[in-house]
Amino acid sequence: MRALTVAPGTANSAQVDDVPEPPRSDGAVLVRALALGVCGTDREIVSGAYGWAPPGERRLVIGHESFGEVQEAPAGCGVKAGDRVVGFVRRPDPVPCPACAAGEWDMCRNGRYTERGIKERNGYGAEFFRVEPEFLVKVDRALGDAGVLVEPTSVVAKAWDHTERIGKRSRSWRPQTLLVTGAGPIGLLAALLGAQRGLDVHVLDHHDSLEKRRLVQALGGTFYLGAITGIESLEPDIVMECTGAPSVVRGVLGRTASSGIVCLVGVSSPGHALDVDVGGFNRAMVLDNGTVFGSVNANRQHYEDAVAALRRADCAWLSSLITRRVPVAQWTQALEAEPDDTKVVVDFS
Amino acid sequence: MRALTVAPGTANSAQVDDVPEPPRSDGAVLVRALALGVCGTDREIVSGAYGWAPPGERRLVIGHESFGEVQEAPAGCGVKAGDRVVGFVRRPDPVPCPACAAGEWDMCRNGRYTERGIKERNGYGAEFFRVEPEFLVKVDRALGDAGVLVEPTSVVAKAWDHTERIGKRSRSWRPQTLLVTGAGPIGLLAALLGAQRGLDVHVLDHHDSLEKRRLVQALGGTFYLGAITGIESLEPDIVMECTGAPSVVRGVLGRTASSGIVCLVGVSSPGHALDVDVGGFNRAMVLDNGTVFGSVNANRQHYEDAVAALRRADCAWLSSLITRRVPVAQWTQALEAEPDDTKVVVDFS
Repeated sequence: MRALTVAPGTANSAQVDDVPEPPRSDGAVLVRALALGVCGTDREIVSGAYGWAPPGERRLVIGHESFGEVQEAPAGCGVKAGDRVVGFVRRPDPVPCPACAAGEWDMCRNGRYTERGIKERNGYGAEFFRVEPEFLVKVDRALGDAGVLVEPTSVVAKAWDHTERIGKRSRSWRPQTLLVTGAGPIGLLAALLGAQRGLDVHVLDHHDSLEKRRLVQALGGTFYLGAITGIESLEPDIVMECTGAPSVVRGVLGRTASSGIVCLVGVSSPGHALDVDVGGFNRAMVLDNGTVFGSVNANRQHYEDAVAALRRADCAWLSSLITRRVPVAQWTQALEAEPDDTKVVVDFS
Repeated sequence: MRALTVAPGTANSAQVDDVPEPPRSDGAVLVRALALGVCGTDREIVSGAYGWAPPGERRLVIGHESFGEVQEAPAGCGVKAGDRVVGFVRRPDPVPCPACAAGEWDMCRNGRYTERGIKERNGYGAEFFRVEPEFLVKVDRALGDAGVLVEPTSVVAKAWDHTERIGKRSRSWRPQTLLVTGAGPIGLLAALLGAQRGLDVHVLDHHDSLEKRRLVQALGGTFYLGAITGIESLEPDIVMECTGAPSVVRGVLGRTASSGIVCLVGVSSPGHALDVDVGGFNRAMVLDNGTVFGSVNANRQHYEDAVAALRRADCAWLSSLITRRVPVAQWTQALEAEPDDTKVVVDFS
């Protein structure tokens, strides 16, 4: 069968390979891929800067934003042939840390997790994949193609879950205003989940796009073009930082209303030194009871939250997020950013 | 009666004034001062950089770390003549924000609170003061002079309360290692409350002092002299940053174990730009689920927690924190830092 593979640590090694059927050891549920989402982590792996092949192997089947249809499943495992499913990304170490043992592999304490398509485990970028019944979520057929958005939405659902848990540092915190930085797929999904919570949604991006303005406005939100310095009168209770761009991260630090929470979801590369008024940042954080936190990955609860959030969303709005579909044979084209891209998927159907 | 006053906004205006007896409008409970703690906020006010006199007045009675003995109190108000008490610092606006309305004036959302001895309300630095029965905490006589530590301990108790609430972002977080930066009164009290929680306590200071080493070791902790770069092998689950020094704040950002929490308690001045690897900070925060938060002030629960924590501590250890007692007539000497100072108090007894 065809699979999308890379040699981690080697730049531009992405290709389509003919590989054997997925081994039974990957899980009892056999799935035929429908689509695979591509994100910044995939680009980082293809650039050679991130990613690890399975032990003893040189190449990694890439892909962690899965979506497919069950072909075979053991009786009573929760899914059956014909069901649509999304596989989880992370797996705990066989000797789990306390977080992994509690099912919170997204909060792994010792870093000994593995990740499908990223870290020491082949991914979902193949015509068929296998997955353990306890590491997948069933996706309603009504969601259509938007099933491929479940994994990125799970990351956003965790960010919201933790924002709300952290908000409980005060019994009386009632956030009203959300600022999302970055109108990529994660930013737009963060805005969607913010709108579903009844927040006043503001989305900032440095790239103008009529389509993104339209998507934000359809949520009842406001789109801003430019830098954060251009919207200084806005005092958000919550900031979801989805760019990972160091200058944007610097701009949002200490940039909320009193008792505000900044959630960092965008991954950046290290080695970007910037001038920061650390005294001013610290003073604002202390005197205003500010919080800044980072959030990565997602556990079962967040995948389930993601499916529920997508079910509540407008189907046409979700479909608009998928701006390009690339056939398997040309999948490396999915890695090249085009100006109007939001979510690019590899089409296995 | 004698009172310690300043003209906010004017540098070095501190003096001892003869002022009228405290007005009944300050509260129904009349208290004779025993001691008043002096802290960095008082020094900032005396420097002219902070503080606000009561509306229509030019001078402010300074002092917010109170400790005194009740002279008169209404029947049934919870305290009686002879009881020792500490008055709270902050008061909600008459039209309270949702946090203030819920008794969480320490999380005030609109900044319209007042503060005794700091913001628009005369403080506790006078031979007698009055306080509302609902804005004081009773202090066991067994605590002795350490009653003057209740207010700074309340700030630390809030920092711990919020650290633990924020820790609930993960069901499985079990912190083991604490790093405290700064071995001043707040740092040592943060270390005390950490030791009471069974944590492995580490305290860093840039000033060597046999006495502070002894105080940390008496808690079962380890004292380090120098910069945070000297203890890179330490991976704390919790950092309590108690210096407010921008270079130390920069050093602790993203400097914890996975899922770690940095609590900022030290106040710094703005306008200290430093080179910060914002990309590296953001990446570590996201991939390690890190949290940084600021904490200020305290509400009733935290004053009660503070009294309970001080009751569990060793009396001699607490007494050692009070390194200088200055008579009222020479109170401005309390503002001048001396090398072996920990907590300096003005003695009203």
